[in-house]
Amino acid sequence: MTEPYLLTASEAGALMKKGDLTVENYAKSLLSRIQKRDAQVKAWAYLDPPFVLEQARNLDQIPAEKRGPLHGIAIGVKDVILTKDMPTKLNSPIYASSTPSTIDAAPIITLRAAGALILGKTTTTEFAAVTTGPCTTNPHDRTRTPGGSSSGSGAAVADFQVPIALGTQTGGSTIRPGSFNGIFAWKPTWGAVSREGLAQYSVTCDTVGFYARTVGDLEMLGRVLRVEDDEGVPERGGGGLRFVGRMFGGRREGGVEDDEGVPERGFEIQGRRIAFCRTHVWGKAGGGTRSAWEGAKRMLVSRGAEVEEIELPSGFERVSGWHADVLAGEGRTSFLGNYLLAKEKMHPMLHGHVNNTTKLTRKAQLEAYDGCARLRPVWDDLASKYDAVLTPSVVDEAPVGTESTGDASFCSIWTILHVPCLNIPGFEGQNGMPIGLTLVGPRYTDEHVLWAGKAIGEVFREEGGWRSKVV
Amino acid sequence: MTEPYLLTASEAGALMKKGDLTVENYAKSLLSRIQKRDAQVKAWAYLDPPFVLEQARNLDQIPAEKRGPLHGIAIGVKDVILTKDMPTKLNSPIYASSTPSTIDAAPIITLRAAGALILGKTTTTEFAAVTTGPCTTNPHDRTRTPGGSSSGSGAAVADFQVPIALGTQTGGSTIRPGSFNGIFAWKPTWGAVSREGLAQYSVTCDTVGFYARTVGDLEMLGRVLRVEDDEGVPERGGGGLRFVGRMFGGRREGGVEDDEGVPERGFEIQGRRIAFCRTHVWGKAGGGTRSAWEGAKRMLVSRGAEVEEIELPSGFERVSGWHADVLAGEGRTSFLGNYLLAKEKMHPMLHGHVNNTTKLTRKAQLEAYDGCARLRPVWDDLASKYDAVLTPSVVDEAPVGTESTGDASFCSIWTILHVPCLNIPGFEGQNGMPIGLTLVGPRYTDEHVLWAGKAIGEVFREEGGWRSKVV
Repeated sequence: MTEPYLLTASEAGALMKKGDLTVENYAKSLLSRIQKRDAQVKAWAYLDPPFVLEQARNLDQIPAEKRGPLHGIAIGVKDVILTKDMPTKLNSPIYASSTPSTIDAAPIITLRAAGALILGKTTTTEFAAVTTGPCTTNPHDRTRTPGGSSSGSGAAVADFQVPIALGTQTGGSTIRPGSFNGIFAWKPTWGAVSREGLAQYSVTCDTVGFYARTVGDLEMLGRVLRVEDDEGVPERGGGGLRFVGRMFGGRREGGVEDDEGVPERGFEIQGRRIAFCRTHVWGKAGGGTRSAWEGAKRMLVSRGAEVEEIELPSGFERVSGWHADVLAGEGRTSFLGNYLLAKEKMHPMLHGHVNNTTKLTRKAQLEAYDGCARLRPVWDDLASKYDAVLTPSVVDEAPVGTESTGDASFCSIWTILHVPCLNIPGFEGQNGMPIGLTLVGPRYTDEHVLWAGKAIGEVFREEGGWRSKVV
Repeated sequence: MTEPYLLTASEAGALMKKGDLTVENYAKSLLSRIQKRDAQVKAWAYLDPPFVLEQARNLDQIPAEKRGPLHGIAIGVKDVILTKDMPTKLNSPIYASSTPSTIDAAPIITLRAAGALILGKTTTTEFAAVTTGPCTTNPHDRTRTPGGSSSGSGAAVADFQVPIALGTQTGGSTIRPGSFNGIFAWKPTWGAVSREGLAQYSVTCDTVGFYARTVGDLEMLGRVLRVEDDEGVPERGGGGLRFVGRMFGGRREGGVEDDEGVPERGFEIQGRRIAFCRTHVWGKAGGGTRSAWEGAKRMLVSRGAEVEEIELPSGFERVSGWHADVLAGEGRTSFLGNYLLAKEKMHPMLHGHVNNTTKLTRKAQLEAYDGCARLRPVWDDLASKYDAVLTPSVVDEAPVGTESTGDASFCSIWTILHVPCLNIPGFEGQNGMPIGLTLVGPRYTDEHVLWAGKAIGEVFREEGGWRSKVV
């Protein structure tokens, strides 16, 4: 039998459901993988193997009929998300001696209620707000950053230490590590998953993110967290079974139910309208991203897609600046308490936020809010004309060094536009490191984005050239 | 000497600064007031007098030069806000046996860093989300509700059990108890105070709120929490002392510093343009509110103000419906975890949110987001033409009974428009209960709203007819 640590969450779940794998043995396999690799990758901020095994044995005691949809699935949690049984240290010297909080963040409550095994806490940059890296290395090249701020979550999933991990994104903190580590990374629509119990940087931008090695695992998470498109919601006031599903490129999303009662839908590339959106920051794209860009277009065209380069309308070029202003304005309040408590233990960038060193006025902050709000429906309308929209994930491969976690320029505009983003891996840069592209969509089309991303991801995997060599 | 529990926070702080009152003696006075009144008012969800006195003695040990601006000021905290040394039970049977969380919510970190004495946790409705009241009674009439969801905070401040208390507002949860209990209640601009560590209902609407018996006490809190208007922010890229202060009615806000280094500004009623905005829900206003409305206009006119009834432009009549839709859409994710954990212990209204019983589509949810976002700058522009804008706080006096905490119709539109709101007490209803009016302003003009509210509050106090009889 395959070593359990190599399985996707869906595969491990199926084995546990059949009784062919206990949660304890699954956990032991993951822990032994971690033991072997941790000295190099250093993805964990907190891990207590005996406690993990105790939890696993408790899950094994649950009778089959009472097991949840994530029964026994191991999940890593970024160390800015509260867990009742583990400390949350936020990579901040202020919280270095934290004890378990007695509180689970809202998404953790949901995941546990579904039977998940919370494995441990993964490394982050300080308060998930700075780009100074933690000690974590990229599992594909120990001299390179895994990205950040969800550094440990991205690295641990890529390194087969855990099948699923939670991150957060305020700029590019979920998508960037996804690309740098060669895995799928999903930042849902803003608000689609509760953020109660997460460290807060920007109310307008903070979003929970998810990592997995397959889209199927992300879809499983999405069902548990009830991240649902309009598809399937009966129309208000309507009788019977009329639906108000969104149309994409004039084509209705069809589906049949598989034997799990879960809709199994195929996104055929043939005939799909797929947009490529460079955005106004394209000038930053390096050789690896440019090569992936051209490769992706070629591959999709050869499969029969209608590929079109699109430009964002006038106004969108201001979104990056507005994003910076919103973070400055909201960071001013978010870090005030800790600043007053122990500013000497905080990164100078956070001092800058509290002291408003960019001299941001409220007027400019409100212009940023209102400007982004005005463009969100414009984006939704534009994106709705296509079956899928691709955009760069990152500047290029993961840079050498772990001091900096890299550049979020290609992600921050989508974060503040509140749209679903999926990093799709598959391409290889000049140094043999992974590069992905991001699939984006209108707000609250997360199911569609995952569905399309699964098919597009298959194409990139087959032809993009990148293969993980970590096992 | 006056019994310390009767003092405002500013008065108590001044005595403690001079060395004429110890924190311990101040706390003892408040605790003895609570002991006398608690059987009737029942404002506290958690209060540990020996622990309070221990904290007070610790504060007394701090050398004078190291004391913060809120040194020794006692503050009640709504029981949906995390406190490291006290449990947070959210009036939910799920959390009835909670222990201290080890985590302070962000505003609590700030208040403690400024020297505040966190006195205890005040009652709330379940998750601050339903209108089924806790056991708390209105201190002015034990047969009536104190309002909610910040029931205990409003009642405790009105009853002189604590000078300042924290609430939250998603609909009218801060302003309504302010009016029902006859005290000042301030809901700052959305985002002006961090919500990290607060129970979450609606990311778009949730706001921390504050209660006090004088505006001066709220101004003191605002300074500590750095809720700052543009006033005083040097212009970006500008040299020297040019300012970008917002103008109100063509008049520059001037000011001189008092001996505390705090700007002391007078808002003269004479010549001010004061708008009265009934809103589209005016039809709900009862006799008490209608009488306060006419009285307020008369009083302000007699002091030389130019009073004008204004109508909100077309579109604003949809805001109440959008507010309900946003709460339905966001409540769907906010309560999912606890629903999966223990739905049998949750209010049916919260089940309804999770199960989307209003059949809200994502399309309608996004229309609500975008509609409100479009109107926010429209409101700002409109309100900027006046020195102050008054609007109803509530339908009428606090209703009889503690089963329902009342109607938030007059508050919810301002909450989702993200604007600063200040309940100004002073009027009396037909049953001798207090009624207030709300001062609103453009976003991020909180300092101005407090400043104007102080002067207008003085007029209402002098002529509005209501006097507290609880001491």
